[in-house]
Amino acid sequence: MTNPRPFLVGLVGTGVAQSLSPLVHMAEGAAQGLALVFRPVDLTALGLSADRLPEVLAWAERLGYNAVTITHPCKQQVISYLDRVDPVAAELGAVNTVLLTPEGRIGYNTDTSGFEAAFRVGMPGAPLGRVVQLGAGGGGTAVADALIRLGAGQLTIIDIDEHRAAALAADLRERRGADVRSVPHSRLAEQLSEAAGVVHCTPQGMHDHPGTPFDTALLRPDLWVADIVYRPLETALLRAARSLGCRTLGGGRMAVYQAADAFRLITGLEPDAERMMQYFGELAEAEDAPVR
Amino acid sequence: MTNPRPFLVGLVGTGVAQSLSPLVHMAEGAAQGLALVFRPVDLTALGLSADRLPEVLAWAERLGYNAVTITHPCKQQVISYLDRVDPVAAELGAVNTVLLTPEGRIGYNTDTSGFEAAFRVGMPGAPLGRVVQLGAGGGGTAVADALIRLGAGQLTIIDIDEHRAAALAADLRERRGADVRSVPHSRLAEQLSEAAGVVHCTPQGMHDHPGTPFDTALLRPDLWVADIVYRPLETALLRAARSLGCRTLGGGRMAVYQAADAFRLITGLEPDAERMMQYFGELAEAEDAPVR
Repeated sequence: MTNPRPFLVGLVGTGVAQSLSPLVHMAEGAAQGLALVFRPVDLTALGLSADRLPEVLAWAERLGYNAVTITHPCKQQVISYLDRVDPVAAELGAVNTVLLTPEGRIGYNTDTSGFEAAFRVGMPGAPLGRVVQLGAGGGGTAVADALIRLGAGQLTIIDIDEHRAAALAADLRERRGADVRSVPHSRLAEQLSEAAGVVHCTPQGMHDHPGTPFDTALLRPDLWVADIVYRPLETALLRAARSLGCRTLGGGRMAVYQAADAFRLITGLEPDAERMMQYFGELAEAEDAPVR
Repeated sequence: MTNPRPFLVGLVGTGVAQSLSPLVHMAEGAAQGLALVFRPVDLTALGLSADRLPEVLAWAERLGYNAVTITHPCKQQVISYLDRVDPVAAELGAVNTVLLTPEGRIGYNTDTSGFEAAFRVGMPGAPLGRVVQLGAGGGGTAVADALIRLGAGQLTIIDIDEHRAAALAADLRERRGADVRSVPHSRLAEQLSEAAGVVHCTPQGMHDHPGTPFDTALLRPDLWVADIVYRPLETALLRAARSLGCRTLGGGRMAVYQAADAFRLITGLEPDAERMMQYFGELAEAEDAPVR
């Protein structure tokens, strides 16, 4: 009789009860012969406000959790309760993975490493001279850092909230010394016409925000299109881009590579990211089916 | 890619960090293709007093635990925080297994069912006309109930604390209408001389309480001897009894059948108790080895 290595992980945030991430982690754990239990800790469903996060962390430790992954709205706040933060996450000011170790709590950001890895795998050799990024929220912040690490020449950030776009651009210029600017949303068409690719980082296209973030008449076959929305796996934007012949990168791959990076940190084992991608696709399609 | 059913279980009590029970549960879970994580929640190591039990239960629920098993000193106290208690456990006034279900918390006692099952399997057909039980604490209370269910004709309870022995005897007479009495410890030799078997339910013989609970010159080959101590697996009392040719039942079997009953309640699956016994034996021997 053998005893597989046990791992206990949680996903902390609001509205996470239906997240696919725990299932993908558990399936990869099982494929690697671990006993890995990954529980959603849905603050909404539990009636806990986000300021109860310190208690959540303390009790996760007491109850034998190895790690928690962190999502909206706790990714910034959690940093106050950590003993150590990985430099990439510290620069970003956002943590989505916390290891609960005997030596203390250590924070990482696998959103940004996950987008980087997804882009390398899913869009190899895509031109990065001029890139437009739509959306400067939490997801956008992680993506912009990844784009700069990937070698984006000039990054233009656009958000309905112009102040937020300008703040992110200024932050990136200062932190990374990169060529980043923000322009008003009204200049989106003009910016797209000059860009090699566009990354979409707003909620538009999700099941509960249907539609496309801009008129798809602005697409052209030589513009690559990445979307970080992954519910549905293929958004209306991606569908339009693909039918036009654009190279596309769906949000599922970022979600999975983010999870794969977290799996590696938590277990110390190398995940099979493409196996996780395959399983994620099956789960997401099964979920999307009844909605259509 | 398949996703095994995940189960998350805790063992709550003082000094449980080194318990073998979580390992035995996890190995059986793995053998049945589950992802079962079983964590010790050691109140001593965590610096939590037993009156924090309500918080432990509430957070175990929030953090996705399916069940907790309960040991000293919380088996009585926990009843106040349950929604339903199995009748056997309610009669005993002690709960060692709590299912955390969407319909509420349900308590069971598998110490008593575990001793009963262990006795049936390990001592089949043993005469039960007159049985002496030494020790009237928590373990003894569970064992006495099991002995009556097993059909003990006359049960004599002896404890250094005569008041405690008398109280348990009176309780059993009232609750079960059974022929149970208590006698002072000074009459142990006389009682053993008339008994078919003796069950030992005190800590004597554990690694940190070495020795035998009574002079082994009182043993005789036709007296069966059961011991609920299981660290070490073979106590000095059992060794002396076995060398004399007595039928013996070690505490390991009660510990394992108690765990097997809990496994069944928690997972809804039939455990392979003898497989668990085998694994428990290996773990216990590995542990005993350096001590000898």
